[in-house]
Amino acid sequence: MRMFRNDYSEGAAPAILDALVRTNYEQHPGYTEGDAHCERARQLIRDFVGRQDVDVEFAIGGTSANIIGVTGMLHDWEGVICTKDGHINVHETGSIAACGRTVLPTQDADGFLSPAEAEKVWQFQTSTGRHMTRPAMIYITDTTEIGGVWSRERFDDICDWAESHNLKIFVDGARMASAMTSPENDLSIQHIAQRASAFYLGGTKNGMLFGEALVIADPDLKRAFPFLIKERGGLMAKGRLQGVQFEAAFDPANYGEAGEPLYYQLARGANACAVRLRDGMATLGYEPYGHSASNQQFFVVTPEQEEAFAEAVGSETFYTLDDGRRVIRFVCSWATTKADVDELLAFAKGIA
Amino acid sequence: MRMFRNDYSEGAAPAILDALVRTNYEQHPGYTEGDAHCERARQLIRDFVGRQDVDVEFAIGGTSANIIGVTGMLHDWEGVICTKDGHINVHETGSIAACGRTVLPTQDADGFLSPAEAEKVWQFQTSTGRHMTRPAMIYITDTTEIGGVWSRERFDDICDWAESHNLKIFVDGARMASAMTSPENDLSIQHIAQRASAFYLGGTKNGMLFGEALVIADPDLKRAFPFLIKERGGLMAKGRLQGVQFEAAFDPANYGEAGEPLYYQLARGANACAVRLRDGMATLGYEPYGHSASNQQFFVVTPEQEEAFAEAVGSETFYTLDDGRRVIRFVCSWATTKADVDELLAFAKGIA
Amino acid sequence: MRMFRNDYSEGAAPAILDALVRTNYEQHPGYTEGDAHCERARQLIRDFVGRQDVDVEFAIGGTSANIIGVTGMLHDWEGVICTKDGHINVHETGSIAACGRTVLPTQDADGFLSPAEAEKVWQFQTSTGRHMTRPAMIYITDTTEIGGVWSRERFDDICDWAESHNLKIFVDGARMASAMTSPENDLSIQHIAQRASAFYLGGTKNGMLFGEALVIADPDLKRAFPFLIKERGGLMAKGRLQGVQFEAAFDPANYGEAGEPLYYQLARGANACAVRLRDGMATLGYEPYGHSASNQQFFVVTPEQEEAFAEAVGSETFYTLDDGRRVIRFVCSWATTKADVDELLAFAKGIA
Amino acid sequence: MRMFRNDYSEGAAPAILDALVRTNYEQHPGYTEGDAHCERARQLIRDFVGRQDVDVEFAIGGTSANIIGVTGMLHDWEGVICTKDGHINVHETGSIAACGRTVLPTQDADGFLSPAEAEKVWQFQTSTGRHMTRPAMIYITDTTEIGGVWSRERFDDICDWAESHNLKIFVDGARMASAMTSPENDLSIQHIAQRASAFYLGGTKNGMLFGEALVIADPDLKRAFPFLIKERGGLMAKGRLQGVQFEAAFDPANYGEAGEPLYYQLARGANACAVRLRDGMATLGYEPYGHSASNQQFFVVTPEQEEAFAEAVGSETFYTLDDGRRVIRFVCSWATTKADVDELLAFAKGIA
Repeated sequence: MRMFRNDYSEGAAPAILDALVRTNYEQHPGYTEGDAHCERARQLIRDFVGRQDVDVEFAIGGTSANIIGVTGMLHDWEGVICTKDGHINVHETGSIAACGRTVLPTQDADGFLSPAEAEKVWQFQTSTGRHMTRPAMIYITDTTEIGGVWSRERFDDICDWAESHNLKIFVDGARMASAMTSPENDLSIQHIAQRASAFYLGGTKNGMLFGEALVIADPDLKRAFPFLIKERGGLMAKGRLQGVQFEAAFDPANYGEAGEPLYYQLARGANACAVRLRDGMATLGYEPYGHSASNQQFFVVTPEQEEAFAEAVGSETFYTLDDGRRVIRFVCSWATTKADVDELLAFAKGIA
Repeated sequence: MRMFRNDYSEGAAPAILDALVRTNYEQHPGYTEGDAHCERARQLIRDFVGRQDVDVEFAIGGTSANIIGVTGMLHDWEGVICTKDGHINVHETGSIAACGRTVLPTQDADGFLSPAEAEKVWQFQTSTGRHMTRPAMIYITDTTEIGGVWSRERFDDICDWAESHNLKIFVDGARMASAMTSPENDLSIQHIAQRASAFYLGGTKNGMLFGEALVIADPDLKRAFPFLIKERGGLMAKGRLQGVQFEAAFDPANYGEAGEPLYYQLARGANACAVRLRDGMATLGYEPYGHSASNQQFFVVTPEQEEAFAEAVGSETFYTLDDGRRVIRFVCSWATTKADVDELLAFAKGIA
Repeated sequence: MRMFRNDYSEGAAPAILDALVRTNYEQHPGYTEGDAHCERARQLIRDFVGRQDVDVEFAIGGTSANIIGVTGMLHDWEGVICTKDGHINVHETGSIAACGRTVLPTQDADGFLSPAEAEKVWQFQTSTGRHMTRPAMIYITDTTEIGGVWSRERFDDICDWAESHNLKIFVDGARMASAMTSPENDLSIQHIAQRASAFYLGGTKNGMLFGEALVIADPDLKRAFPFLIKERGGLMAKGRLQGVQFEAAFDPANYGEAGEPLYYQLARGANACAVRLRDGMATLGYEPYGHSASNQQFFVVTPEQEEAFAEAVGSETFYTLDDGRRVIRFVCSWATTKADVDELLAFAKGIA
Repeated sequence: MRMFRNDYSEGAAPAILDALVRTNYEQHPGYTEGDAHCERARQLIRDFVGRQDVDVEFAIGGTSANIIGVTGMLHDWEGVICTKDGHINVHETGSIAACGRTVLPTQDADGFLSPAEAEKVWQFQTSTGRHMTRPAMIYITDTTEIGGVWSRERFDDICDWAESHNLKIFVDGARMASAMTSPENDLSIQHIAQRASAFYLGGTKNGMLFGEALVIADPDLKRAFPFLIKERGGLMAKGRLQGVQFEAAFDPANYGEAGEPLYYQLARGANACAVRLRDGMATLGYEPYGHSASNQQFFVVTPEQEEAFAEAVGSETFYTLDDGRRVIRFVCSWATTKADVDELLAFAKGIA
């Protein structure tokens, strides 16, 4: 049975892999500088997000993109506000602190950073002047850690709040493609590009071997990025690999019948499988954990079911509830098929 | 009226100042190395805490002592568990993150780090292996941020827990003298010295111009301290100043009738004033915030009272409660007298 | 004409690319943990270097490998001794300082770290105790920055010196394959594995898309690596990509007629082209800069020749000599052919 | 005999100590904020250096002042150019690297940073773009590490060079008073204040217990300082101590017959002793090492003389020359008298 462990279990989507193979013997100068693929990918992304004044740069993965995005926009004594389950707060081994900056978590419990909770952090952190880390930016994730999709209203609310406090806005887009193509999404990447100081389009979790494309409007980060990416060990010698993959992902030649970039097509397929899985599980009586309309689906199960699913499809456990039940996660990727979902549902039925 | 703003409002206690003046024209090599005062202070402290195998070193203040104590016992990817109101978590401008390490706060609300809450942090941080900062030490404060005094039972419980998880134990003793001489204290400095990997005896808040004496049992910190204190900008050229002050504070010649070091006498006086203040305020109907038997006393007051006290005696506001009332703090020092307390109480009566 | 700019101009060597394509649709857990390719690559490397007690881990590139290798073996106040042209000293944007450690360069001018110059740094840095960064490791590169190949005698001399000073030994092996297969090499990878605290086998510059395999004997680095690689943004989600490539590079199935790993075959080819180029250039009267028996060759040329070669084959300029002449570099890779070399030589003849 | 080991062997000069004693029982809010002494000292210094638009802030010592001055004016990927013997390069245990920034030393051998050597570093560091640390400031010291006094011409030359490269200018003034009152000085503090982005007036080495006053024109450092000083553990709780001392040092009431601040009077006395010592030693046939017209004097002596002087007056050894002779240093302070000098000269005569 196909694993539903995560969206980076497989290698690259076929069209991405083909592009890598096809260009393998070309010679390029390296470091994402001066090669046609990186340049074209940059331009395709600028066109797609609708801003010509942004820099487009490449990172090898989400942690690297977050390190550079956050530290490139903060002074030493400044901090970044995010939800307590924010990836940079809990799942990146203290990478922001390792670069000397402080993460300032709110008490938001649903994965969405809210103006009300952010304001509490702001009030607290600015209450004793220099004795506390100064908030200077917010970090949000679309989709959230538990699969939530930001609505335009919610996004504008937090951006309004941030701007009113003179804070920069960073959007971790490791699963941006899944968010943008969610059936419930009403927020466009063009709108994000208008408001965010910087954000990224994740490739690793959407059919590439690796790679995230940072879109940078903030002048401080524009200036810092080329140096930081090298200093922090994230600059690929064969940088063209990132250009080739993002070029394929946004190349109009790959729009096909869908009329949209491969980047969205891949995510749309994963989302469709995830929604099919969600609805099928509900029919079988499984309790969802939160509401997700993206490629990650969470369910509350018994310890016995937890074990059975883990063995069968590699699902991971996220929380143990007070009553002893477990919250587990299924993730669909570009490679997941409806047949895979149905096979999982049949298994789930057997242990319901 | 005397300010009750904090315990570092005045300069040095008379006997400390006398020692500085008396030794002012001596010549010493500098950097706390090879001068008789530093050496004698070290030996007096080793004798007093009852361990000859510890290193005694000097820092210029609490933040510097915390930076070096914490970073000297943690690898880059490790973190320190403390309560959410721990000084290193909220009041030192991200100094631990600035040195690349992560603070891991518990949800303890009363200032005491509890095994139960620490265990939750431990479980969470070790749940996904390398993806999370590894806890490697605990940080506690005696007295706590809100004036609490650790009992021996409570202290042993958290030390037992830490040892069972192979974590180092660091005790911030910025107000250690106030804790040890509190009427409710049943924990000895000798016992702390037996269990802590490192701790310090605060001078700044107990009648010195500045200076904290670190007592170091941990071999990693022993090796690191001499370099870290210089690297982090905390090594005084005229290091003898710290030796002279701690020598005076622990010199048997200054035990007097009290039969205890000047270090304890100064704090005992401050505590007596604080308890007199606490009890007087209670009689006047003021609501205490938490229970303190040390030199800091917290009360819940109206915004009008907050303002009046701030103007009269420099009290600081710590929290605004949901009902709009404020938590303010009065602090007594070695310089506070009973007459000062009575004057404040008379003022408090007028605005009760 | 083929570029001779560097050894990371192309994508992957055919057998490496084939392995990636062949395994692309497999599912693996991620992060180099628990997938068969990483595990097998680790074992193949342990077998090849002749030590079963080492950890084998993967980094995405040389800078990342250096950051983790160096910081994982140094405390905050310690430093690493290397030559003044050492890659970590000049070409990685201060990455070691960015992690809080200090690079301590010697005055060695030929790329080889010598005991005599290292001793001078040691003497100086330890002359005023805590006021100076303490040397705790040495960093060497094989091949050196200018293509030099370490002899066994030279290597043993510096290792003896380092051990006598209780310093750890780190070998940057970004071009280790070229060194080991150089016609002048008499040092075996098995010998390096016996003496180095850690070293790495570079993949990026030897026919892989990316990836360096660290071989770790040092217990501190063994413990640190899993956390540091994540904290520093270098842990690949699709970690299997590194396993697949190194598995192919060391798989006995790929030994073929050469009777040696593909990893060596690729480098041997590059070296053969480089030596052909070197000898051909000498015949044409070009002046070599230093002596190289590896895949990088340096020559002293006129500004006109510099420009012509840069345009024709992408050669880079390393130095401008006092007389105005330039030192340029040609690099051969696994993809370079004898025909490519002869074409370059023909061009060189035209402008000699 | 009086030690000539350094200028921080004694405590405070009498007038400084008196000010501390006189104000000891005053109450102040702490942290250099809102107390009359810090405010008055700030204004006296602004008036003295002739700029009202600068911020004046206090650090506890030179290393702390350097850490904050340098890191507050550099981004993570930027570096500071200084001479190879610059204090931040060799004598502060890697403190700049510990804060993530890189020191970029020139080959200047006389302690003065020259435009020619600085230009070489600039050319090298900017030759490969993002692969190298970007120079963003220069660091100079007046007096230099070996007692040199900057002339106005020399100072203007390096400032012109720095400005032409858009680099900030930082002047370490640990011994600024000695420089400004040197018989050979033609550079005014007012001129430095016009050109430097930031500089400091050292107190530790000029008759204070401790303390350096930073004069900050640079807007980035102005904004950073209040937070950095706390984050880096350098903010004194009893911050008034620094204010009291600098107030006394610059108080017109202390100008006396000399018609200049105590700050200069103290240094002028030390310089006079040093020049008397220098000339006396020359008469005795001792060889000076370099030329100094400030309070540090260096001589070339035999190993036997080295040992005899070290025992007699605590002189320290700086270098061992190739011929085995030693360079030793004598330092005069505000406390040194002509009689002390003559006693040393008599001793020197005995072993000449």
